[in-house]
Amino acid sequence: MAATNASDAVEPDQTMSETVMVGKFYGVGLGPGDPELMTLRAHRLISNAAVVAYPALAGAESFARAIAADVITQGAREIVMDVPMTVERAPAQAAYDKGAEEIASALEAGQDVICLCEGDPFFYGSFMYLFMRLSDRYEVEVVPGVTSITTCAARAGMPLVARNERLTVLPGPLPEDELRTRIEGAESVAIMKVGRHLAKIRSVIDKLGFADKAMYVERASLPDEVVLPLREAPEKAPYFSMILLTKGADPWL
Amino acid sequence: MAATNASDAVEPDQTMSETVMVGKFYGVGLGPGDPELMTLRAHRLISNAAVVAYPALAGAESFARAIAADVITQGAREIVMDVPMTVERAPAQAAYDKGAEEIASALEAGQDVICLCEGDPFFYGSFMYLFMRLSDRYEVEVVPGVTSITTCAARAGMPLVARNERLTVLPGPLPEDELRTRIEGAESVAIMKVGRHLAKIRSVIDKLGFADKAMYVERASLPDEVVLPLREAPEKAPYFSMILLTKGADPWL
Ligand SMILES: C[S@@+](CC[C@H](N)C(=O)[O-])C[C@H]1O[C@@H](n2cnc3c(N)ncnc32)[C@H](O)[C@@H]1O
Ligand SMILES: C[S@@+](CC[C@H](N)C(=O)[O-])C[C@H]1O[C@@H](n2cnc3c(N)ncnc32)[C@H](O)[C@@H]1O
Repeated sequence: MAATNASDAVEPDQTMSETVMVGKFYGVGLGPGDPELMTLRAHRLISNAAVVAYPALAGAESFARAIAADVITQGAREIVMDVPMTVERAPAQAAYDKGAEEIASALEAGQDVICLCEGDPFFYGSFMYLFMRLSDRYEVEVVPGVTSITTCAARAGMPLVARNERLTVLPGPLPEDELRTRIEGAESVAIMKVGRHLAKIRSVIDKLGFADKAMYVERASLPDEVVLPLREAPEKAPYFSMILLTKGADPWL
Repeated sequence: MAATNASDAVEPDQTMSETVMVGKFYGVGLGPGDPELMTLRAHRLISNAAVVAYPALAGAESFARAIAADVITQGAREIVMDVPMTVERAPAQAAYDKGAEEIASALEAGQDVICLCEGDPFFYGSFMYLFMRLSDRYEVEVVPGVTSITTCAARAGMPLVARNERLTVLPGPLPEDELRTRIEGAESVAIMKVGRHLAKIRSVIDKLGFADKAMYVERASLPDEVVLPLREAPEKAPYFSMILLTKGADPWL
């Protein structure tokens, strides 16, 4: 909807031949890490991009940039948003504000801007903070990407949901009590952002008696991927890790 | 895991030069409908495929086949599974049994078989019925695809989940009472398989007071796509439709 409205809004420019045509802002999902899991559309847009943008969290290298590295052309301009990882929100907000303004300037100058997003842009992606800042003023297209959830399921050989089953996606940082209640009431479960919450999550799943039905997947689709039954998961999990649990009470067709 | 085990199992053949090398079975996600939302990997595998397989439900044209139509090569053999849509399970089971045996014969003859899957293979996909029948005997690789959920969100301009929010995926055929309870306790919700359940789902969302926060998306990413606020959704929904609801209590960063 927002995209349609924004598109209407820029139409006057497109009919006025003396005005510079305003650029379009793309949020492009790149998939979970293996560059071959990028869509044809993402590949085409990045190959042709004169301006790419991406956040770099806490000064670390951008994972999204790494996935697209071989597709970004030599001359492309890169708008990097350095997003600090502080408890207060203001510093991160300021970083997105500044990034949004840089992107807006490029759009006003008639350039399309391609925002690189790990996985899918609207699925726990920081792209949405730029979307909220720009979608009322500019035409925005979101190009969906393969998410980490179905990638982890594929790599673990674990069908996620069939027929009338429910899927619940939970962030690992949720409090222990809430995780317990949610997992108990769920059918299939994917737990994101495991990292330093691994011990807590494992203890919850253990106490509920589901440990034998859970898998641990780290850096799915990348060369150093790890896929293990949760019981055999390492003590420490990196940020890019996930736990999948399928209760699968119903025998498959 | 299953893939790794299967791979170990075929190794003896690979070292015996007189034996035909057993083929590999691929479950390949094709994304939600727009052929450009196929991954590079799916595109490469299908371009090189000598044998493709797919189910055709109740004699209808296969949506997966349609998405891949321009990529399948002229000479490729097509294994079509005609899956009847009956209430009893036996006829569908028999169709998957028969399809699995045809696929197994091709694999035994040393051919790779590429199973075409709409969206992602392990996300409400019938590929899992073939996976269950073949993964203990053959090497299987599942190639994840863009799901309908994040595609519908992208097309509706609707960020799905951020930070520590939960996502609940519900099938529309669930009973009204269960839908109500699940939606009430959820944060972001995606309701699949809307079709003839639209009126029931709409009434549940209405009664819970969330109608203004829900979008209706039909045939996302296809030329005849429909994106509307749930309030303006048509009376009749096709099978390829979805309802998204984000309560978004937490103000975005
Ligand atoms: C901020 S979220 C981004 C999710 C991403 N937008 C997507 O669509 O998958 C980051 C979390 O996604 C999961 N994740 C992303 N890529 C992953 C991968 N390759 N392997 C395992 N988990 C991954 C991890 O749980 C990680 O903590
Ligand atoms: C059997 S499920 C298959 C889901 C698919 N494997 C995926 O990954 O999205 C079929 C349901 O997916 C949803 N769906 C699939 N493609 C869609 C599209 N292009 N637009 C809207 N909904 C779609 C609809 O809710 C439909 O009833």
